[in-house]
Amino acid sequence: MNETAPLPTAPGDRIEGYLARVERALERWLPGSETPPSRLHEAMRYSVLGGGKRIRPLLVYAAGEALGTEVALLDAPAVAIELMHAFSLVHDDLPAMDNDDLRRGRPTTHRAFDEATAILAADALQPLAFQVLSSDPALLPFPDAQVALVRLLAEACGSEGITGGQAIDLASEGRQLDAAELEHMYRLKTGRLLRASIMAPACCPPRPATEIRHALERFSDRLGLAFQIRDDILDIEGETAVIGKQQGADIARDKATYPAMFGLEQARGRLAELLSEAMEELERFGERGEFLRSLTRMVVERRH
Amino acid sequence: MNETAPLPTAPGDRIEGYLARVERALERWLPGSETPPSRLHEAMRYSVLGGGKRIRPLLVYAAGEALGTEVALLDAPAVAIELMHAFSLVHDDLPAMDNDDLRRGRPTTHRAFDEATAILAADALQPLAFQVLSSDPALLPFPDAQVALVRLLAEACGSEGITGGQAIDLASEGRQLDAAELEHMYRLKTGRLLRASIMAPACCPPRPATEIRHALERFSDRLGLAFQIRDDILDIEGETAVIGKQQGADIARDKATYPAMFGLEQARGRLAELLSEAMEELERFGERGEFLRSLTRMVVERRH
Repeated sequence: MNETAPLPTAPGDRIEGYLARVERALERWLPGSETPPSRLHEAMRYSVLGGGKRIRPLLVYAAGEALGTEVALLDAPAVAIELMHAFSLVHDDLPAMDNDDLRRGRPTTHRAFDEATAILAADALQPLAFQVLSSDPALLPFPDAQVALVRLLAEACGSEGITGGQAIDLASEGRQLDAAELEHMYRLKTGRLLRASIMAPACCPPRPATEIRHALERFSDRLGLAFQIRDDILDIEGETAVIGKQQGADIARDKATYPAMFGLEQARGRLAELLSEAMEELERFGERGEFLRSLTRMVVERRH
Repeated sequence: MNETAPLPTAPGDRIEGYLARVERALERWLPGSETPPSRLHEAMRYSVLGGGKRIRPLLVYAAGEALGTEVALLDAPAVAIELMHAFSLVHDDLPAMDNDDLRRGRPTTHRAFDEATAILAADALQPLAFQVLSSDPALLPFPDAQVALVRLLAEACGSEGITGGQAIDLASEGRQLDAAELEHMYRLKTGRLLRASIMAPACCPPRPATEIRHALERFSDRLGLAFQIRDDILDIEGETAVIGKQQGADIARDKATYPAMFGLEQARGRLAELLSEAMEELERFGERGEFLRSLTRMVVERRH
């Protein structure tokens, strides 16, 4: 898809176009593996490229469609958010954390390289994300948008975002969380970065009205929770080959999950409820919200 | 020191004033240890507060004096840079990296807490630094300055900054670097963040002329290298109790260092040369550069 071509209308083609777009943008921003320190750059590329469903970048583009944001402004936030997602996965997989050997059907970064390289590669993805937001040429004429995006991403990734969520998740192993604690953990660990994906286009011109922002925030709240419950259900039901990681890994670690707490039936019920609430918030976007609606359905009903 | 009081003139009092100022600002930005996830927040505070020479924040304030930058604009970059410095120390100390037990005369973060908590605490310091730059009230009227500061810090901390420097440092253990490789490693590992400290005020209004910026860049280049050579000399000569970490640790790990490569005598000679070159660049700042000059001398001649 090039910059000026009209967007294809079928959601499937739309996805292909955006996937190619974000892949190219990621490729452009990641230092080449021949650039020294090359092993570090190789590990960064390994952690980000080749695999990954790119759900967060797709949500950035889809929310941008709903708001009528120029697509060229969305590449930087799409890339920055995906880099942050990759950072968190690499550290979550470390021996001192979840100690996972497999991710996206391949060895985890510390398995493919070594532990020190994996720690540093992920460490370097974080500043790269902020470098993208502060240096992308398309965003340069809009410093207010850049600052808003930096703040959005920083808040989503810190101790009251994904990193804090991971800390609570680790602390929960082998002890009982109540439903409120579990939802709080989900909100930080997965919800905040999904919310950032949805809200990133709202940081760009044209800035939407407050009520539109609030509708998107409520939507992202439902979506984030639904996403995590779907993840938990897949961990129980999915096959290793399809989900790309060890099936049943959460149960084996005695981790707090929604289905473990309430049973599969109720988890499915809550999922349906959240989906319907999320879709309701999107009604106001009319035709422009079509891609975001179809993406939401795909994310909540995904098999891997 | 309050916002409106005139600056004390003696460099020693100046230092005390700025140290109190940055300590208060750090304290203000770090989440309280009673805020959940509290163990994570406790580890973040442990990693940043109580100890630390705060050389980088002092350089921010001193360069700000030389440029005539309003001091209120400097708190955010001073804090952000110190948070990044703390992040890098916590990860450098991890078992998979330098495996250090002692830092600033206290157990390292992974010793005082545990490995997972140390990894996550440092991970959360990174976005906090960018949150400070994008949210500090004093900087809000200057989005161009905020963006420039974000870019400066992001570039200093990524794979072609401190994190890349640490990767090269690890890769150098037990093998011979040549002088150019060693200086390159120093430039990334220590130089880039020191350079960011010096250049941060130049991102704020009033933006200095290009030739002033270039003089500061040359200065920071000399200072960064001198700083690291002094560090290496201290590792050989210093006593554990004074430098707050294991003396001789670099030699024990067979790390590339300047004195190991060229001998102590030549290292001291290079240091004197760099100091004189650095001071030369500061001449143009006249009286306003006095504090930066005295700080430079202190940093290069420090005993710990």
